[in-house]
Formats: sequence, structure tokens, C-alpha cells
Amino acid sequence: MAAQKPAHAPTPVPDRPHPDATRRSQRSRQAIYDAALALVAEVGYPKTTIEGIAARAGVGKQTIYRWWASKADVLLEAFLDLGEQAVRAAGEAAYAIPDTGDVAADLKVVLRATVDELRDPKFEAPYRALAAEGVVNEQLGREFVTRLLEPSLQLHADRLRAAQDAGQVRPEIDPRIGLELFVSPLAQRWLQHTGTISHAYTDTLVDYALHGLAPR
Amino acid sequence: MAAQKPAHAPTPVPDRPHPDATRRSQRSRQAIYDAALALVAEVGYPKTTIEGIAARAGVGKQTIYRWWASKADVLLEAFLDLGEQAVRAAGEAAYAIPDTGDVAADLKVVLRATVDELRDPKFEAPYRALAAEGVVNEQLGREFVTRLLEPSLQLHADRLRAAQDAGQVRPEIDPRIGLELFVSPLAQRWLQHTGTISHAYTDTLVDYALHGLAPR
Repeated sequence: MAAQKPAHAPTPVPDRPHPDATRRSQRSRQAIYDAALALVAEVGYPKTTIEGIAARAGVGKQTIYRWWASKADVLLEAFLDLGEQAVRAAGEAAYAIPDTGDVAADLKVVLRATVDELRDPKFEAPYRALAAEGVVNEQLGREFVTRLLEPSLQLHADRLRAAQDAGQVRPEIDPRIGLELFVSPLAQRWLQHTGTISHAYTDTLVDYALHGLAPR
Repeated sequence: MAAQKPAHAPTPVPDRPHPDATRRSQRSRQAIYDAALALVAEVGYPKTTIEGIAARAGVGKQTIYRWWASKADVLLEAFLDLGEQAVRAAGEAAYAIPDTGDVAADLKVVLRATVDELRDPKFEAPYRALAAEGVVNEQLGREFVTRLLEPSLQLHADRLRAAQDAGQVRPEIDPRIGLELFVSPLAQRWLQHTGTISHAYTDTLVDYALHGLAPR
């Protein structure tokens, strides 16, 4: 879901930049990210343009084209940056799933944090706009998945693999499918408004997924 | 997911209609449904208009306004009708989840049918357009859920309740959450292009959901 690996923002730094120039670039970049996220939240993906982002950020169109190939690129980087900011705000070095040895407890912590992020207004409107476009625009959807969603899903798969090594998950389980039992219900409730999301709800998902619906 | 209860289309039949008039109404209604589904698939929900549907169906705008209050209403009825047609084509009286006494087998049958429906081009493009709009348009999303999605989810919940009575699902499980362990992964893969969908995949989901990821 929302959780992301640290972003690797492009670093189009010229040879030995003057410190002021680097700071100016950094300020412009942040203004462009903010403008892109605000605009897509307000008017949706199809009506968001490079021109509109430039005007709102107070930079020239060419500044954007120098750094990114398309509006999809700008938006994806803006989301990666938003994820990095959230990680820094939480005082963490990088987004990760804890491994305390108790897979249920660790997954609950992560899913609770995802619930909080999905409910954060700063995050919700632009993320919905991008997700909606991904439903009908397969190319954008796949890029969105490859760069934003799949890195986070792989962290969940890694945590399930560690649990397999620790004997807490059955060895024959495919971790990439297993994680969907607790990640996808949260995603569907949020995307399709099929139900409320809460910490109690995601705790329940983890328990059901680990222990199954059938009697033991 | 895709599965639906039989639709209850409005029946705005005047007192003792002449049989020809009823047939003409029925033809107009079908033309309107077809036009609405084709148009939303081609141009998306925001650009679909009552005028456009009327023009494409070859009927007057007033004919549509006489039967439906809004384009959302027309589209929702068109989807319900599409679901009914699929049920009739399958030679069934009404959409239902079988109860053979083996909950795993029954859920696998239903999820395989849902996979087939999600891959049917007749269904896919308009359903994606409506789902995408529901992500960013909460009012439409909730109506879409209430009228199309939730009736189908309730059938899954009912089947899990029957399995609880039969001792195949633990009594403390909330069926409305339990069903999400196998329904939501399929929904997310389809909506967000996070993975391929197949009968083998949904069979695996049912097995994982029932038996859990942890060792037994």
C-alpha cells in the first residue's frame, strides 16, 4: 500500500554546482512536487498538465522538462518524495517492516501505519487521483505499481519469507500471494469505499490471514 | 465483485399497455443500456452525458429522463442488466453461490466465474470506467458499492455463514471480513494491475484464506 522504500530522486546536479544553485534547485523541485500533488488532487490526472504544474510552482516549463520526461514521471517522483518525508517525520532512516520475531505483531504495526497514511488528507486526494487513473490507463497503472506499490509489497513478501525461516508461516506458501490476504482487503475498502478502515480492522485481517477461516 | 443479484429494473409501464408499446419500450431500454455502457467505456464517466447516451441509442433525451433520474442511475441499471444477461446466458435462474457442502469447492467455482467475467471485454471497459470514477467520486463510489458490489459480497458472506453452521468455518469469524481474504486480492489485482488473474490464482486464494498462512 502506501509504504514505500526510500525514493531515489533523480540528481541532475551539474558538475560541481555552486551551493546556492543546488539550494535553488532543491527549492524548485519541492515547489514542483507540491504543485503536482495539489493539482492532480484538484482536477484529476487527465487535466493536470506540465504547464499547469509549472505555473503553480512558479517555475518555467523548461525547468520541469529538464528534470522529467512526462507528467507521470513528475507525479511518481512527487509521491516517492512524500513517502520519504513521512518516513523522516516518523524519525526513521528508511521505510522497513520490523522483525521482532513475532510476525503477527510486526504486520499489525505496519498495517496500522498504512491506515494512518491512507487517512492523511495530504496524501489521500492525490493518491486517489493517481489510483483512479491507473484503473483505466493500464500503462500509468503499471508504472504506478512498479515504482510505488510493488516495492512496498516486496517488503511484506520479505517479512513473510523471514517468518517462513522462523517456522511461523508454512514453507509451501507463496509470500507474494500470501501478503495479499491482509494488504488487498485494506486496499479495496479504501479504493472502493466498501467499508471503514481502522486499526482494529487491520489487526483482524492479520489474525484471519495467519490462522485461516477454517477450524484448526 | 462482478457477481450480482438479479436486477430489479424499473417497470414504468403505463396502465394496461398495448403489447407493441411494451415491446418498443423494451427495445428502447436495451438500446439505452448498450449506448451507456459503450459510451462510458470509450470516453469515461465524466464525459458521458444523458444527451450522448440518447443520441447513440437513437431515442429522445426525455425518454431517458422519464425512466432514470441521472446518468449514474442509467449506468447502474445497465450494469445490473448486464449481470442478469450473463446469468441467463449461463442458463441459471438467478445468481447464487452453490452450497454442495464443500465450502472450498463452492468458493473456487464462484471465483473462477468472476475471473472469466472480469476478463470479458464486454464487461471490462465499462466496469473499469465506473470503478475508476468511484475511486475519486465518493458519492458514486458508495452508490456503486451499495447497488452492484455489496449484494454480491453478501452472497459470499451468506455462504461463509452456512459454512459456519456446517463447522467448516470458525464460529468467531466475521463473515463480512472473512470473505475479503479471497475477494479483495482478486479485486486489487484487476483494478490496480498488480498481478495476473487466473483460475489457479483464485483457487490458491481460497486455500490460503481457509487454512491460513501459519502452520497448523
